[in-house]
Amino acid sequence: MRMVDLIQKKRDGYNLTAQEIHWMIQNYTQSKIPDYQMSAFAMAVFFQGMCDRESTDLTQAMIESGKQISLEQIQGIKVDKHSTGGVGDTTTLVLAPLVCACGAPVAKMSGRGLGYTGGTIDKLESVPGFHTELTNEQFIQLVNTNQIAIIGQSTELTPADKKLYSLRDVTATVDSIPLIASSIMSKKIAAGADAIVLDVKVGSGTFMKTVKDARSLARLMVAIGKGVGKDMVAILSDMSQPLGNAIGNALEVREAIATLQGKGPEDLRQLCFVLGAHMLILSKQANTIKEAEQMLAKAISSGKALEKFQQFISAQGGDASIVDHPEKLPVAKYVYEIRTKRSGYIHKILPESVGMAAMMLGAGRKTKQSLIDLSVGLVLQKKVGDFVSKGETWIQVFSQNSENPEIDALLSDSLLIDSSPIQKGNPFIYEFIQ
Amino acid sequence: MRMVDLIQKKRDGYNLTAQEIHWMIQNYTQSKIPDYQMSAFAMAVFFQGMCDRESTDLTQAMIESGKQISLEQIQGIKVDKHSTGGVGDTTTLVLAPLVCACGAPVAKMSGRGLGYTGGTIDKLESVPGFHTELTNEQFIQLVNTNQIAIIGQSTELTPADKKLYSLRDVTATVDSIPLIASSIMSKKIAAGADAIVLDVKVGSGTFMKTVKDARSLARLMVAIGKGVGKDMVAILSDMSQPLGNAIGNALEVREAIATLQGKGPEDLRQLCFVLGAHMLILSKQANTIKEAEQMLAKAISSGKALEKFQQFISAQGGDASIVDHPEKLPVAKYVYEIRTKRSGYIHKILPESVGMAAMMLGAGRKTKQSLIDLSVGLVLQKKVGDFVSKGETWIQVFSQNSENPEIDALLSDSLLIDSSPIQKGNPFIYEFIQ
Repeated sequence: MRMVDLIQKKRDGYNLTAQEIHWMIQNYTQSKIPDYQMSAFAMAVFFQGMCDRESTDLTQAMIESGKQISLEQIQGIKVDKHSTGGVGDTTTLVLAPLVCACGAPVAKMSGRGLGYTGGTIDKLESVPGFHTELTNEQFIQLVNTNQIAIIGQSTELTPADKKLYSLRDVTATVDSIPLIASSIMSKKIAAGADAIVLDVKVGSGTFMKTVKDARSLARLMVAIGKGVGKDMVAILSDMSQPLGNAIGNALEVREAIATLQGKGPEDLRQLCFVLGAHMLILSKQANTIKEAEQMLAKAISSGKALEKFQQFISAQGGDASIVDHPEKLPVAKYVYEIRTKRSGYIHKILPESVGMAAMMLGAGRKTKQSLIDLSVGLVLQKKVGDFVSKGETWIQVFSQNSENPEIDALLSDSLLIDSSPIQKGNPFIYEFIQ
Repeated sequence: MRMVDLIQKKRDGYNLTAQEIHWMIQNYTQSKIPDYQMSAFAMAVFFQGMCDRESTDLTQAMIESGKQISLEQIQGIKVDKHSTGGVGDTTTLVLAPLVCACGAPVAKMSGRGLGYTGGTIDKLESVPGFHTELTNEQFIQLVNTNQIAIIGQSTELTPADKKLYSLRDVTATVDSIPLIASSIMSKKIAAGADAIVLDVKVGSGTFMKTVKDARSLARLMVAIGKGVGKDMVAILSDMSQPLGNAIGNALEVREAIATLQGKGPEDLRQLCFVLGAHMLILSKQANTIKEAEQMLAKAISSGKALEKFQQFISAQGGDASIVDHPEKLPVAKYVYEIRTKRSGYIHKILPESVGMAAMMLGAGRKTKQSLIDLSVGLVLQKKVGDFVSKGETWIQVFSQNSENPEIDALLSDSLLIDSSPIQKGNPFIYEFIQ
């Protein structure tokens, strides 16, 4: 077998066999196939696509390129959740203790990631003392004791995906649906879950700009998961404006706590309930969505979800008193407000601009080497559909500087106000794919 | 400027600016842009193409990546010829002395190349003593004395093209018309010619399988040449069967000598006359095709072309007595014949199969490291349109073995005989592009 022939086969629109895909990924992982061949292949996939069967084989080959986590020693059905990333996505911080409080074991592997803000692990590290450096044995023991633990992404999982993703990042081959799907699914499956709920974001703040593209990605990920025997649900959710109000690491932890106390933003609560309900059904804790949603509501109103959050934080070395004393979280030196320039209804809050502003404040990583400032970020005071008067505060900036002219201008440009009224909240959940 | 952005721009179907192309090629030549980005770019070009202006900028950038030959010290208009490569292409060996005998100076840089047989330099090296290791000064002096010299391709010319071509070869990005055109044209223009006649082959034995593709390539190369101020003509010629009868290095030298003696195969003679006539017109030695063809015919009948060939061979150290004593050329140990399995008219002689058979005998290089056997090859006794009886010899095999079952079977499979008559020779010259 020669890699050049496989590149040509894909380039000319043919499907590769399972054997060809496994050979390719195995040799690429061992650096027997050079990057310059793999990047040409990735570009051919960008143009010619991959069928479901090829994408499943690619996922499987990437899983087999490294170690796999076994969660067999944990009792119950382990359901994982993955969101495709957006602006202000605090769902994991809320969902992990919430579904756990309803009886589903949470054994989650999470990342840091590049993006507008840090990943779940970064966010949690705003809690003084919290850490994720657990051995696999400690991790499993913790889940068996508390029903919940979060561990950092092992470097031993899916090395082929890591190598390929770095290459795609610098060769303009990131936004290919089969490559995105197999990258996400290989990591999720290797992490050992029995079932997976996918939250595929749609809108200008994400990779998937249209419902059509998001549907293709969701459909393919569900097919891949089912192809290797996992229970799967995917939800298409809106990201045409930031989710919730907070964008930033410690700020999102605060918002997650508020949500667990029943005081969070409505859109974030709603999405967590939809995702959480499906997680409870897949883990056989509930039979219907309605029943599951009642369980989730009760876990919040009874304080059980918040209690689970505190137990989880403490068990991993964190200071659980932050729930009552949020000032113990990292605090930015300055907080200032951006005000509206006219009266009217908010038609748009461009998530990519707001996210970029958060990153420029220091909340996210531009490169792997970037340091994150956990304290900085943004908090929206208004959302799409709200009426604002001229000069009203619509967003707060948490920064190490008293002003940031470039960032402030970017934020002002991200807001579109018009005199005509507009419905609050688009269709917020577009559809379910099973 | 970042290479990843240029890849994405091309991937999404936009044209690159001249500045972007020059920046890219300059940095690639200096290895500041890695191969893995350039191969992804080449694949994006495969799918999205390049406009004439981009292709001309790419050609110009590749020329500027290295040295350029100046032929200013040679009097007269220097016309070069390039054939896109096929099976049994002996035209350079015939044309160089032929047009020189008619007054056009021939200062040719030629290659070895990978393919079914060696390149022009390999073929000429079958002549005992012949060499092309000349300094630029010796080369120019030789042309000014004899009007003819051939030199090997300088390694200092178009290093960007060499680097990019090697990369394309292993990443399935060879057959892209803008990349082929800029590769050929950058080498030709850097070699210093004033005018160029292009012989673009059409048929299953070449890159361009259809007249449409060949026309696109020819049209683009003519546009690139004109874009940098060269006089240009392109001819689309047939390669649906091997050209001439001989395929192999010393065997093609013999055939070239026969053609210069007026005894060569008719298709080879005809193509050399068409190409030669255009070369004489571009070099202002003739005013019309008819006049040029008469000059070429006279150069052969008078013996002047053959005399020029001998002078050229001697001047570069070769033994010119091979013209009368062809047995002094390398001779294969065995010659045997392949016979037809039925009677009828020859409908097809698949050039790619015949070429592959020649390569397997040792006439061509599979890789840069392969050694060529100059003595081996094939000589057709019949061509498309000929009637053959069952058991008649249709091809001779010159080999170091008395039989080669695999090669012999490949040859038998390359021949299609049918009982219906078929016209001799397809339209042999499809069209001219100026």
